[in-house]
Amino acid sequence: MADAIKGNAIIGQSGGPTAVINQSLVGAIEALYECDAVENVLGAQNAVRGIVEERFLDLNGLDAETLEAVANTPAAALGSSRDKPDAEYCKRIFQSLEKRNIRYFFYIGGNDSADTTRIVNEMANEAGYEMRVFHIPKTIDNDLRVTDHCPGYGSAAKFVASAFMGDDRDNNALPGIKINVVMGRNAGWLTAASVLGRGDVDCGPHLVYVPEVAFDTDKFIADVREVYGRLGRCQIAVSEGIADETGMPVTVGLAERLGHRVERDSHGNVQLSGSGALGDFLGDLVKQELKQQYKTIRVRSDTFGYLQRSFAGFASEVDQKEARLAGRTAVQYATSGDIDGSVAFNRIGEGENYAVECFRAELKDVARETKDLPREWINEAGNGIQQAFIDYAMPLTGGLPKVGQLRKMA
Amino acid sequence: MADAIKGNAIIGQSGGPTAVINQSLVGAIEALYECDAVENVLGAQNAVRGIVEERFLDLNGLDAETLEAVANTPAAALGSSRDKPDAEYCKRIFQSLEKRNIRYFFYIGGNDSADTTRIVNEMANEAGYEMRVFHIPKTIDNDLRVTDHCPGYGSAAKFVASAFMGDDRDNNALPGIKINVVMGRNAGWLTAASVLGRGDVDCGPHLVYVPEVAFDTDKFIADVREVYGRLGRCQIAVSEGIADETGMPVTVGLAERLGHRVERDSHGNVQLSGSGALGDFLGDLVKQELKQQYKTIRVRSDTFGYLQRSFAGFASEVDQKEARLAGRTAVQYATSGDIDGSVAFNRIGEGENYAVECFRAELKDVARETKDLPREWINEAGNGIQQAFIDYAMPLTGGLPKVGQLRKMA
Repeated sequence: MADAIKGNAIIGQSGGPTAVINQSLVGAIEALYECDAVENVLGAQNAVRGIVEERFLDLNGLDAETLEAVANTPAAALGSSRDKPDAEYCKRIFQSLEKRNIRYFFYIGGNDSADTTRIVNEMANEAGYEMRVFHIPKTIDNDLRVTDHCPGYGSAAKFVASAFMGDDRDNNALPGIKINVVMGRNAGWLTAASVLGRGDVDCGPHLVYVPEVAFDTDKFIADVREVYGRLGRCQIAVSEGIADETGMPVTVGLAERLGHRVERDSHGNVQLSGSGALGDFLGDLVKQELKQQYKTIRVRSDTFGYLQRSFAGFASEVDQKEARLAGRTAVQYATSGDIDGSVAFNRIGEGENYAVECFRAELKDVARETKDLPREWINEAGNGIQQAFIDYAMPLTGGLPKVGQLRKMA
Repeated sequence: MADAIKGNAIIGQSGGPTAVINQSLVGAIEALYECDAVENVLGAQNAVRGIVEERFLDLNGLDAETLEAVANTPAAALGSSRDKPDAEYCKRIFQSLEKRNIRYFFYIGGNDSADTTRIVNEMANEAGYEMRVFHIPKTIDNDLRVTDHCPGYGSAAKFVASAFMGDDRDNNALPGIKINVVMGRNAGWLTAASVLGRGDVDCGPHLVYVPEVAFDTDKFIADVREVYGRLGRCQIAVSEGIADETGMPVTVGLAERLGHRVERDSHGNVQLSGSGALGDFLGDLVKQELKQQYKTIRVRSDTFGYLQRSFAGFASEVDQKEARLAGRTAVQYATSGDIDGSVAFNRIGEGENYAVECFRAELKDVARETKDLPREWINEAGNGIQQAFIDYAMPLTGGLPKVGQLRKMA
């Protein structure tokens, strides 16, 4: 087993915020404080951007109270970046790290961040510069490979599930059709979480559409018509990334069908502005198709937006603990002989006995490609989510609010 | 003091949901169970609509566990309605209540609901039918007269404040201009709550626009330019109901300025669809005006939507207790001699000594007209909120999440 090398450590946070990305930061800082080989602990401001621009935060000697407050704060406390470094950019990263005698590089992020660490790590190896490089997983999308699930997902899932629970009661009190658009461009993990708090067979969401299944507009209308005819209301969960069988975003097809002008830029790409466009277009379509049968039909849509990833004070306790553990474990791996890798979770208990243990994954196995929601966790009709997903995701939320109903007719 | 008359009681819930509207329902039910004069407790399904259609729920003998679960559930457990009864409709309400020997009528809602109870009460008086009629206040808009504040507001304020806290950290991590549209067609109470969790002078929201101040588009652009130039980012809170000095919704003027086609219906009213239109238009305008100076400026908008009124599991504890108290107090008033009225709050302590006591308000003083955010609680420039509002609103949230920051440069 290799000894811990002497030198400085740096931590960066990349990509979109989560409610627990700072738990991983603080877990890593706490573990680094315990390690004699680590001299200075630096933070990279705005991720890789801050490394190449040499904008660093001093993370030495922070007191427990500050650390705890930061850990409980959503969104990257170090600042983040959307930069996806190419080889040249990675070279500048490596040069900046080498200049500061960084021997421990921790990068909290998704699959693109794993790829960045992989490239920087290879450059260090080629240069014969000894540096331990660890990726710490983070994404509300839950789409990283190898690991059972990703820190950040449980809190976002709790938020989405709770939003649907309350909104379902809202829809029950003032019946109509309600469309909620959930984050997830390529994978339906977060949209699937809409079902986690569903009370019984009459509760919403009644229909769930994820990017893993090609969206068929006529089938959608038939689905809504069936539910509305049966219950007099319908709550619908839709991933922002749903696309038709050719892969074209649903918004484009809907805009054309509804007679909206679709603008294209000089490259021929469709320009669709409007933060609520998908929900609005689906709502307009439903109104258009059902208004003959139901004259006063009430149709509304909401697009949950950034609240899903950065709402304060509502993180999953399980997610918080696991994110902290992931940060801490990355340091333990890096300082006890492991050269590089990504921290991953293995589930070692189900239901009430739910627990995880960490293991080291290879950077190349986590980098770049992502993981979809398994097709068998989506129902055959492609408009609902199976119990197997609920069993998988429920423990990650740390528990959901309880709701009650009144039913007895007088 | 009049004796409690023997007979049945009915409770209804009207208008838009809140997180604590069922606390008031349960408070009333619990108090009615303790009253010997009350024979049966009925619930009106979907408010006045259920009364005239004789759709009732049996609320007798519900166990404590069910009541507690219902109390903690957002949105009217009895179902709600948007109906605004005229005199003829009120007559049918009264006839339905008389038929069921209702002697206690409790109606949870906003100013329109207070007006309904006022009319029904007058009809009962004219008919010589003895009935005690109480309005129990409820609205996230906080716009009822007489009372210090309204049950439902504290929870919505807590949600909006927490959303802005997290989103501000998000905006700090990935800098740009972020516009958040908050509920409130006529009054800025809820939008003002965006400032409650603001950490320090650099934290957002940096600009706040409420309907009480006429919106000036050019001044808005100048405000954003100033903040963005100074901080490199800008988080903005906007009420959905902002209008220009002629009272025209801002969306209409923006649509014309941005070159969008503005459709008008057969009555000449502007038709603006799009759940995110206001935020999107403001965002497009900012991009258009600032892009020459800042080429890669990042502008995003979110419209918080229904989550503000019905999110599950995040109610203000203070609001929950007060809503329960309002329901209970309405029954105490009705069964101990008071004939009619609305329950109102009087604040009897400030800051850490915050407390309320209830008093009876006249229905006519609560009905119809509403209460704006005082002009002196908005800054002179009309783009920010004063400390006096924070002192007023903070206790109603029951406390906000704590957030932390890292600041020391290396």
